[in-house]
Amino acid sequence: MKHFNIHPVDRSLETAIQEKIDNLNKPKGSLGRLEELAMQVCLIQQTLEPSLTHPCHLLLGGDHGIEREGVSVSPREVTWQQMINFTRGGGGVNMFCRQHGFKLRVVDVGVDYDLVSAISPKNAGNILFLDRKIARGTRNFLHEPAMSEEEFDSAIQTGCQLVDDCIAEGCRVLSIGEMGIANTSPSSIWMSLFCHLPLQECIGAGAGLDTPGIRHKYEVLAQAMKNFEAHRIQEGYEAHEAIRYFGGFEMVTAIGAMLRAAEKHLLVMVDGFIMTACALAALQLYPAARDYMVFTHCGDESGHKKMLNAMGARPLLHLGLRLGEGTGALCAFPIIDSAVRMINEMNNFDNAKITKYF
Amino acid sequence: MKHFNIHPVDRSLETAIQEKIDNLNKPKGSLGRLEELAMQVCLIQQTLEPSLTHPCHLLLGGDHGIEREGVSVSPREVTWQQMINFTRGGGGVNMFCRQHGFKLRVVDVGVDYDLVSAISPKNAGNILFLDRKIARGTRNFLHEPAMSEEEFDSAIQTGCQLVDDCIAEGCRVLSIGEMGIANTSPSSIWMSLFCHLPLQECIGAGAGLDTPGIRHKYEVLAQAMKNFEAHRIQEGYEAHEAIRYFGGFEMVTAIGAMLRAAEKHLLVMVDGFIMTACALAALQLYPAARDYMVFTHCGDESGHKKMLNAMGARPLLHLGLRLGEGTGALCAFPIIDSAVRMINEMNNFDNAKITKYF
Repeated sequence: MKHFNIHPVDRSLETAIQEKIDNLNKPKGSLGRLEELAMQVCLIQQTLEPSLTHPCHLLLGGDHGIEREGVSVSPREVTWQQMINFTRGGGGVNMFCRQHGFKLRVVDVGVDYDLVSAISPKNAGNILFLDRKIARGTRNFLHEPAMSEEEFDSAIQTGCQLVDDCIAEGCRVLSIGEMGIANTSPSSIWMSLFCHLPLQECIGAGAGLDTPGIRHKYEVLAQAMKNFEAHRIQEGYEAHEAIRYFGGFEMVTAIGAMLRAAEKHLLVMVDGFIMTACALAALQLYPAARDYMVFTHCGDESGHKKMLNAMGARPLLHLGLRLGEGTGALCAFPIIDSAVRMINEMNNFDNAKITKYF
Repeated sequence: MKHFNIHPVDRSLETAIQEKIDNLNKPKGSLGRLEELAMQVCLIQQTLEPSLTHPCHLLLGGDHGIEREGVSVSPREVTWQQMINFTRGGGGVNMFCRQHGFKLRVVDVGVDYDLVSAISPKNAGNILFLDRKIARGTRNFLHEPAMSEEEFDSAIQTGCQLVDDCIAEGCRVLSIGEMGIANTSPSSIWMSLFCHLPLQECIGAGAGLDTPGIRHKYEVLAQAMKNFEAHRIQEGYEAHEAIRYFGGFEMVTAIGAMLRAAEKHLLVMVDGFIMTACALAALQLYPAARDYMVFTHCGDESGHKKMLNAMGARPLLHLGLRLGEGTGALCAFPIIDSAVRMINEMNNFDNAKITKYF
């Protein structure tokens, strides 16, 4: 696969940034997580005056062969219906993009429908539809790899190009969401493989593992993992093989986007169970990309918290969201914006003429 | 004291509101806390199309007689210095008011300094300074009540008038912050009295007390409570007596503002240890005011979480903020705004032409 040139952030500015934060007119440390976020953004951008210009949200859509096994309660058609809805401004993601000034790219990377013919106009206000379809859904990973090597490379490359387009517009902060019925299934398998946890801990247990739907999902996914392992595990396997074998096009595109964003020193906002699984997968490939990620929301999907813990991530919000689309990331954006405003706009003790206190 | 006409919200619209929320094009319940917030705002405003027009932030400042006992690491002068700083736009609260479109009223209700002479201009951009000084700080409650009955009534009345001014501008959502060196001390005592918890569970580091400092603070406050109880407890006492005996002018003004806001069906955003203590005190007087409050942030001050639990409050944010000024409330505002946008702007299943899913 494509090579990315990703390094941990250069920490040589850390002392200077911390001094600036500590001299703002507030008790030391009293803005808590905002101070940590300001530090992170400053280190990513290598500046004491960071900015979050032109925020972009990528909404990546794709269908999944595994959906044919009845692992999702929602029918496949919801993917394309929602993608159309997003281009018309009526989805959850649209509200939050409008609220926080994000440009929204609705990208078909693998939806099982002729979306490009169905959507008009393709560019309306802050919403841009892009046809980057790799195939009409992945193959069914119960029986065969979800995608070929060529499709995998194409999805990674699509993620890169999308980020490059955002950067060309001046974007410094990226959030990514997804629409893909059944994509919790590959997410659970990645979590199991990459966090070394039993599959049953990675599948929605909020409803209780004994309910028939969840039991069926577990049995399908467990069999799929067995089939994969029969071919791979014995002689060892690379992370990217597991990503390709189970992943959706929207998920692999997200991984490509995350890695390109890290390479280009963008802040990446990660939310939701599926995007967190994509971040986890991206970090199997390039652990240094971690420095560029902020984890925005911990939802109620079972295992999300465990997956975040495995990455040492403390999410910003706990709002019980489980809509997907990247809505958790968008809801957290004002907090990151507050952090940047703090370090740029808040007076320091000298110019505020205040007795320094603690 | 003044009587308020506060009733629990009328729930007759609840079913209609829930139906509207459930028919938005998302899996039922998938916007989690946002759905609960939308319900609350709709019930407060008695409408299916709520709005959060003209948000106002009251920043109330006052000094405390108890500060003379060395219960705070910061000197008293920080109160007036910060109040001046807030009128110049350089404080933490200023950034967040600008970010979220709040009009900021910086109100001197009891600062021990001639602020009105020191501040010019009094009205600049979104910042308005108001001189509502009741006295130059409260009395030292180690030896006597912090304020007289007349001063208490005056502070409650000031809170009412401030809210009425906001309403006259079209305000539907109010947040309240404070600046008052040593005001964690009365907050801890109120918490102990009203939550029926031992004082030592209610005292934290404030803005950075070391261990001997916390011990000293405990001893001072425990003695003050003994003195109060010697006069009051034997024949029973009313909540408002404890509020008057220990409270700061900024705190009692906040209570008046919270009660008036509930009476007038405004949403009140409560943050921080001190404002949470004021909400707790307000609810001793009028329990029905609870329906109008949203608890926005749980900080690290010891006891804050316990106090929130006592009110059945689940705060929206956990960002480790301990700056005061109402900054936690302001940081949470976009989430409430998201909830209102959800119910107003999101498509429903019918007009989005989407298969209803779960």
